[in-house]
Amino acid sequence: MQVTFIWHEQIDGRWSQRQKQVTTSGDMTVLRLAREHDIKIDATCGGRGRCGRCKIVVHGPLNQVSEIEAQLLTKEELARGIRLACYARPLGDIQVSIPTGETELLQILTEGSKQVVAAEPDVAKEFVTVDKPQLETPDGDRERLLETLKRSGQQDCHLPLGIMSSLPEILRRADHQVTVTRWRNHIVAVESGDTTDELFGLAFDIGTTTVVGGLIDLYQGKELAVAARLNGQAAYGADVISRVEYASNGASQLRRLQQAVVDTLNGVISELHEKTGISPEKMCRVVIVGNTCMQHLALGVSPTYIARSPYTPAFSRRFDVSAGQLGLAVNPEAPVTFLPNVAGFVGADTVGVVVATGLANQDGRVLMVDIGTNGEIVMSHGGRMVSCSTAAGPAFEGAQISSGMRAGEGAIEFVEIGEDIEIEVIGQTRPRGICGSGLIDLIAELLKVGIIDETGRLQDASELQGLSPKLLERIRTGEAGNEFVVVWSEDAADGSDIVLTQRDVRELQLAKGAIRAGTMILQKILGIKDEDIDELLLAGAFGNYIRKESAMRMGLLPRVPLEKVRSVGNAARVGARLCLISQGKLEEASRLAKSMDYVELSGRPDFQEAFMDAMLFPQDNLSSQDSTKINKNVPRDHAV
Amino acid sequence: MQVTFIWHEQIDGRWSQRQKQVTTSGDMTVLRLAREHDIKIDATCGGRGRCGRCKIVVHGPLNQVSEIEAQLLTKEELARGIRLACYARPLGDIQVSIPTGETELLQILTEGSKQVVAAEPDVAKEFVTVDKPQLETPDGDRERLLETLKRSGQQDCHLPLGIMSSLPEILRRADHQVTVTRWRNHIVAVESGDTTDELFGLAFDIGTTTVVGGLIDLYQGKELAVAARLNGQAAYGADVISRVEYASNGASQLRRLQQAVVDTLNGVISELHEKTGISPEKMCRVVIVGNTCMQHLALGVSPTYIARSPYTPAFSRRFDVSAGQLGLAVNPEAPVTFLPNVAGFVGADTVGVVVATGLANQDGRVLMVDIGTNGEIVMSHGGRMVSCSTAAGPAFEGAQISSGMRAGEGAIEFVEIGEDIEIEVIGQTRPRGICGSGLIDLIAELLKVGIIDETGRLQDASELQGLSPKLLERIRTGEAGNEFVVVWSEDAADGSDIVLTQRDVRELQLAKGAIRAGTMILQKILGIKDEDIDELLLAGAFGNYIRKESAMRMGLLPRVPLEKVRSVGNAARVGARLCLISQGKLEEASRLAKSMDYVELSGRPDFQEAFMDAMLFPQDNLSSQDSTKINKNVPRDHAV
Repeated sequence: MQVTFIWHEQIDGRWSQRQKQVTTSGDMTVLRLAREHDIKIDATCGGRGRCGRCKIVVHGPLNQVSEIEAQLLTKEELARGIRLACYARPLGDIQVSIPTGETELLQILTEGSKQVVAAEPDVAKEFVTVDKPQLETPDGDRERLLETLKRSGQQDCHLPLGIMSSLPEILRRADHQVTVTRWRNHIVAVESGDTTDELFGLAFDIGTTTVVGGLIDLYQGKELAVAARLNGQAAYGADVISRVEYASNGASQLRRLQQAVVDTLNGVISELHEKTGISPEKMCRVVIVGNTCMQHLALGVSPTYIARSPYTPAFSRRFDVSAGQLGLAVNPEAPVTFLPNVAGFVGADTVGVVVATGLANQDGRVLMVDIGTNGEIVMSHGGRMVSCSTAAGPAFEGAQISSGMRAGEGAIEFVEIGEDIEIEVIGQTRPRGICGSGLIDLIAELLKVGIIDETGRLQDASELQGLSPKLLERIRTGEAGNEFVVVWSEDAADGSDIVLTQRDVRELQLAKGAIRAGTMILQKILGIKDEDIDELLLAGAFGNYIRKESAMRMGLLPRVPLEKVRSVGNAARVGARLCLISQGKLEEASRLAKSMDYVELSGRPDFQEAFMDAMLFPQDNLSSQDSTKINKNVPRDHAV
Repeated sequence: MQVTFIWHEQIDGRWSQRQKQVTTSGDMTVLRLAREHDIKIDATCGGRGRCGRCKIVVHGPLNQVSEIEAQLLTKEELARGIRLACYARPLGDIQVSIPTGETELLQILTEGSKQVVAAEPDVAKEFVTVDKPQLETPDGDRERLLETLKRSGQQDCHLPLGIMSSLPEILRRADHQVTVTRWRNHIVAVESGDTTDELFGLAFDIGTTTVVGGLIDLYQGKELAVAARLNGQAAYGADVISRVEYASNGASQLRRLQQAVVDTLNGVISELHEKTGISPEKMCRVVIVGNTCMQHLALGVSPTYIARSPYTPAFSRRFDVSAGQLGLAVNPEAPVTFLPNVAGFVGADTVGVVVATGLANQDGRVLMVDIGTNGEIVMSHGGRMVSCSTAAGPAFEGAQISSGMRAGEGAIEFVEIGEDIEIEVIGQTRPRGICGSGLIDLIAELLKVGIIDETGRLQDASELQGLSPKLLERIRTGEAGNEFVVVWSEDAADGSDIVLTQRDVRELQLAKGAIRAGTMILQKILGIKDEDIDELLLAGAFGNYIRKESAMRMGLLPRVPLEKVRSVGNAARVGARLCLISQGKLEEASRLAKSMDYVELSGRPDFQEAFMDAMLFPQDNLSSQDSTKINKNVPRDHAV
């Protein structure tokens, strides 16, 4: 039997589709077959049915779905024909599509939050027959087109210059039968013939690190393809503040940052084009979310004053601009909407999360936390929403931590401590360092066994009782206080010990203290105690991949029952997508951003106090019994 | 005493102001003083007080205004301190501004038509104090500005990206006190401090040959300066049709034509800036007239179908675009309005004339004729207006005539026949050829003395009786029929005879036949006989400079009493200026263009017949008595 593998590869910066047909007797899993033919399918667990990472989309006869697959795949994935390559076995000729890592990641993220939203976009198409010109009636092509639209109820439409200049040719080529795409009273496109059967738009999330875009069928609301790129601005500073500083150096620096992100967006667009075959000129509506600073930089507007008290953005409400003005390589007349921001550090991405999660419309007391370099927090109760932003710093991204690293190959993403320490490493290689989710696990586990006390002090081995010798051996005195050896040099990738130092613990205390203090202040404002919280939403990639119980145990999050915690994934982009396909949601976004209260923590005298409290680790630690309830079967494809 | 001369010179394509101070005892006229110091002041009559061309603007003590000056200068010119350099004599230190030829020309043209129109432009300024940002209120700069405008009654203003990007700096530099310029609900400018005392706009007439622009004080409606340039498109074809052909070759050719005229407009703008010191960024409103094709080319819209039956323009009604989109070097957000066109060959320039002359509101039967390569004709009666365009060809511009030339140095601009032929030549040099006004004079005079008969045939000398020998000598047989020698070779600049051939007469018959047939058809449609015409308006430079009686005598215009004929000068640009300073006029222009009927002559069976009739010369020629009533004192600075 024949197995045809289809995958995408980036060659010279451009994505292109690759294909390979192989013959098999059917005795091998798809994963093994792929490996034999040097076709790459991600599988961190080495095909042991643990990581859930080797997802494939299969057309053709296969063996039955295994119990493990039923456990590791969601109902939607199973319905879409997604299988795990390590279990799937061909029963005849099949076609195997291998999602790229990024695509897969986003498929998972976008499923974080689901709402049923009817597709009613604010762009519309109409097929019309324009009167032909006559010798007696000297009306221009534009005037006859506008008259036709008027007859069908569209008054005072505006035809932009860019379309007017090609209108004479289009009308004559199409024998005066054309399809008009309209946004409000702006004509966005005039196409030959009847193209009313298709209508496409783009939803973008411009993150400080990553830019993700989805191509959406605006009639069905369906996402036809997703693509992601690293934000090209990264070369000018890793975080928001360093970019603001760079942009503040002058107009040419600002332009450079804008060009970088526009190039990134265009890279995503070109990838979406290649994945779907849909030409960029047909993309006629764009909605963008991103934090306030990213929105400024994408528009070429200086974010200087966002970073200085009183932290004032140049604009906070929704902003519409044409794709051409922005430099986006889609239909130049396509309206591009930047969703509204709430404040300098509570941006449209947070508004997107609120729209996507329906936070504003929920009855209970809901807390939403989006952890990054900044933590954006929203607390909702009885129609009122309060938001704040708190500077956590990059500790959770592995920065400023002695053995810290970003989630990537060689990063310790999971830690459990029993007799000794057990770790899992991304890519199943020798460990190189610890990423955010690993750090949170590590702190939580060290607290559990008492190696770290509530003040954050790493204990001397002599102070500890009842611990295994293997663990005690790992505690030693370093240059600045005690340290804990997570991996001995002989097991580490670069041959030196991977350690957690006393200073690292302090950095993590500062970071988690900032986030926790933010939630405490919002809870205080709305009079909501930890035990009153009905739901705790974790947004963003981070929220998706950390172990919630570890995060609570270390006091990053308020202590609520696990079932009340929900990861909503990349809800910001889901929000953008909802606003793209639904006028109602777009208007809701503006209402929400306007009605949401913003609390400037630096202006509150009680914030410092809350911060000092929150830096301590919780005393009433979870019993060790709880800590074993870790569900290892939850796929953690990418740690953070 | 000191005399400071100030003039403008074009150096490397840019106009710059020049200045020279000279000492004099006061015994010389300004003209002689200038010549002694090699400073150029135009004076075709050589300082004899005849041409009225050596106009200067003087500040400081001068001798009294002479009788000749009182005769040659208008009341307005005298009031503005304009003197003739050949009579002015300093009585102390003075400053002498020398207008460039073009400026002067336009000063005269723009006085052709006067209406009292109150300045009520559609742009407005408002000085506002914007709330300062607060730690508690995270609203953006844009939002606080819009809120301020809302409080003063301006709802839903739109702040364009270009202004938003500089808003944070402007607000802080101005301590949040700014002046907002608004067009409808579009914000056009935000300036530091209170600038409500000034508001500037530009009115352009884009002619096929010349582009003329005026800088207007929008509060007072006053024209602060005028500048003119040759349309840079001339390199790609002299007339409309050849430009349409060039533009139809492809997108890059079209772009080249657009760039050429935009460069020309920017040249005019830079000259206006230099003349007034008013920076282009302060120019925040632009109104443009021009024929339909020039409007298309300026916007980069293909005029291809204007030149093909059924002669359909891409657009006919008013078109608004931003200066930035057009590439104009003024405030990029300044709205630029292209006045509406009536048809492919009755353009916004004609609409401008109609607005400027108040044609639509006149009670009588008024005929307006604008003669160029095309003749645009409008007939108005009782609120109804009918228009047409007729292709006269370039004969009146001296093209396709054996000794024809454009009006310029060496062109015969005036002809009178008595015992012999008398001519006047532009620049008072030896003649090089005959320009349009000279040709019309020549034909009319030859008709008067019978050398040309009503069919247009140049008679043999033998057929003529009672003519002086000097005249008879000039009639000879050429290569294609008879010809008339206007200037003998010994008097001509290039040493060869300047003649009018039989073929030249035929060309002029075709040209005048086309114009006259157009007027006949419009008169027929409205049932108006020649004798019923209450007023005959001649628009454009041509109408300004031809001898009306000659034009009537040769049958170019219907025969009406001379006092009913009025030259309205460059009324098209006056129309643009009125629309610039008055919203009411701007709206009127749209109404007029829409309500004006258009007659496509090529679609009428009776046109050919009228054309054949109109090619003949009138039988009932004016008596020779009338022909001597030529007022030589009217300054004819530039013939055509």
